[in-house]
Amino acid sequence: MKNFIYDIPTKLYFGRDQIEKLPDLINRFGKKVLLTYGGGSIKKNGLYDKVKDLLKNCEIFELSGIEPNPRIESVRKGAELCKEHQIDVILAVGGGSTIDASKMIAAAAKYDGDAWDLVKNRDLIKDVLPLIDILTLSATGTEMNTSSVITNFKTKEKIGTSAYSLYPYASICDPTYTFSVNPYQTAAGTADIMSHTFEIYFSHEEEVFIQDRLAEGILSACIHYLPIALEDPHNYDARANLMWASTLALNGLTSFGKGGPWTCHPIEHVLSAYYDITHAVGLAILTPRWMDFAVNEKTVERFAMYAENVWGIPKGDDLFASARLAIDKTYQFFLDVGLPMTLGEVGIETDEYFEEMAMQAAPRLENSYVPLTKDDVVNILYACRQPRKMSTSL
Amino acid sequence: MKNFIYDIPTKLYFGRDQIEKLPDLINRFGKKVLLTYGGGSIKKNGLYDKVKDLLKNCEIFELSGIEPNPRIESVRKGAELCKEHQIDVILAVGGGSTIDASKMIAAAAKYDGDAWDLVKNRDLIKDVLPLIDILTLSATGTEMNTSSVITNFKTKEKIGTSAYSLYPYASICDPTYTFSVNPYQTAAGTADIMSHTFEIYFSHEEEVFIQDRLAEGILSACIHYLPIALEDPHNYDARANLMWASTLALNGLTSFGKGGPWTCHPIEHVLSAYYDITHAVGLAILTPRWMDFAVNEKTVERFAMYAENVWGIPKGDDLFASARLAIDKTYQFFLDVGLPMTLGEVGIETDEYFEEMAMQAAPRLENSYVPLTKDDVVNILYACRQPRKMSTSL
Repeated sequence: MKNFIYDIPTKLYFGRDQIEKLPDLINRFGKKVLLTYGGGSIKKNGLYDKVKDLLKNCEIFELSGIEPNPRIESVRKGAELCKEHQIDVILAVGGGSTIDASKMIAAAAKYDGDAWDLVKNRDLIKDVLPLIDILTLSATGTEMNTSSVITNFKTKEKIGTSAYSLYPYASICDPTYTFSVNPYQTAAGTADIMSHTFEIYFSHEEEVFIQDRLAEGILSACIHYLPIALEDPHNYDARANLMWASTLALNGLTSFGKGGPWTCHPIEHVLSAYYDITHAVGLAILTPRWMDFAVNEKTVERFAMYAENVWGIPKGDDLFASARLAIDKTYQFFLDVGLPMTLGEVGIETDEYFEEMAMQAAPRLENSYVPLTKDDVVNILYACRQPRKMSTSL
Repeated sequence: MKNFIYDIPTKLYFGRDQIEKLPDLINRFGKKVLLTYGGGSIKKNGLYDKVKDLLKNCEIFELSGIEPNPRIESVRKGAELCKEHQIDVILAVGGGSTIDASKMIAAAAKYDGDAWDLVKNRDLIKDVLPLIDILTLSATGTEMNTSSVITNFKTKEKIGTSAYSLYPYASICDPTYTFSVNPYQTAAGTADIMSHTFEIYFSHEEEVFIQDRLAEGILSACIHYLPIALEDPHNYDARANLMWASTLALNGLTSFGKGGPWTCHPIEHVLSAYYDITHAVGLAILTPRWMDFAVNEKTVERFAMYAENVWGIPKGDDLFASARLAIDKTYQFFLDVGLPMTLGEVGIETDEYFEEMAMQAAPRLENSYVPLTKDDVVNILYACRQPRKMSTSL
């Protein structure tokens, strides 16, 4: 096991009605609040009104319309608002995009230069405004980590940055706020959780026994509860387990002692910087094709472990057969929950930018679980154009 | 899933040579340090000298000789030293006993009355001195939680208390410091970790999918790595996995969303308040007998899950058979790692205090997983006098 530091300052309030703690949390910092949110679903489901009501004694400024794959322009706008109104605390209400953008707004509010500098160079992130969030989508895990992913469509760059000071001060995670998430976003969010878990689980660090079991538990929870949430969107336990899975998949607990040799995320970041597709759907499409690529003599043992502990496939003599069956099941699961599983279905009709995108991604894949060259990335992208052929009859 | 708050301020530095961070951590609070430790093993293994060397620029006062089942007298002595020398920060070097005592010293140092008041009434714990610890035994999990268990042999009371302010500021967890822990203490410490996990795992809250898998992972890690650590005490990965298991078993992650309906600990606390036995050995003796008592129509499903996911016993039609086999395996495991498994072996030769002890324990067992009466406790204690009869041929 490698050395690690477990130091998570975020306070996570999980469960029904935890929003009642909001006034106390906000008032620790002041009365001037920047409320950030996305497309307005929080106005439909009553959360916006609830927040306004709870914070009656505060002066609230608003930044709405934060995009999926949040853009640097939104960050700049938010930072300006903070500076102009001397904001005390940011309240982000939404999913990963709103919270990621708000993290960078919190940093840019205390920075004299352009916000994009901070995305490109985390060392410039020093002092930040306090951030409190109310999570409305189980997916990215941003509610309890230091990461933020921001897109600059002008330069065709989508960059993840990370700094200790970007931990939210507090996150309110009430599974009932995800009752109204539609089936597509519910499935996509779960694919995101699973992808985070895969990216860390598939590593060469072997003696990380508990981390591996935790990762398998997260994956099994997603597989168990996503169909229930799709069938019965108001099922509290299903929504709660998915929400808790989203936090645990990326707050450090699965990677402590091992790190994570990420592969699909760097490729997907390039894809969505070029095409603005739904991040998690890109991941779902890439994952089984990446798995097909990654199974080899060195890795098959771990894929067979995945097969056994997540899919209940007994470990027989033929580890490759186990691995192939597990990949088939992974692909079929994403299909069954209604995710588009080819690039064409998300509007990437041609191979026009395959070489260019692969060039951008490849330098970040040299230390992946199985290192990838530019050509490997191109091949994986081609595989993503066709429905995947099953290796087994399931 | 029940509501919960995940808010752990302790910074945990895990791995080889993390002690190098000590001067920086200590200097955040000042130069006057109270160094607390137990029987002096840290002088034999070089840790004492290392600490003194790293903290050359500090003024160090010492409280040594903190007992297993740490006593209120040690807490009082430590608090006096803090007051007399205006200590800035406490550095506890040792296992659960030293750290538990130091937590209460940190609280009593800022309290005008007698330290025992704080043990009996957690609401009196307000301001505390900062506490940093260096862990030398994988067992109690105190390195990342709010609990402290203190014994008053005059009143025959052993009481666990808990307050947010008792979280250590930082814990240094270097598995190499446990290389010199003898087989008996290594096995006992692991039994403690397993007991913490059992106390929380066996609950009636069903929809806590990930917490259950994490608990099973911790138990499986103990079962996998303890024999390796006994065979090869310097095996880093074995020691590291046991150390990480000790923290995770009791820092909240297994109990979030469900709570823990503890049973064996309240009984053991009475046992060791009367007889000063090794806490974890008391737990190892009690656990299989408690399990025998607890298996019934309502609980057998969970015992069969334990059997399947921890011991690999396939879930057949007869859940009771699975449960019995798993309990046999649990008992045999404790025997195999060299733990005494009857009360006589730890010096409790008679049943003289059985009724009296059961009277003390019973009020704390009314909300246990399976509620226990005084008579149930007496029966369990009688069962602990004889070697347990196996239900199966294993």
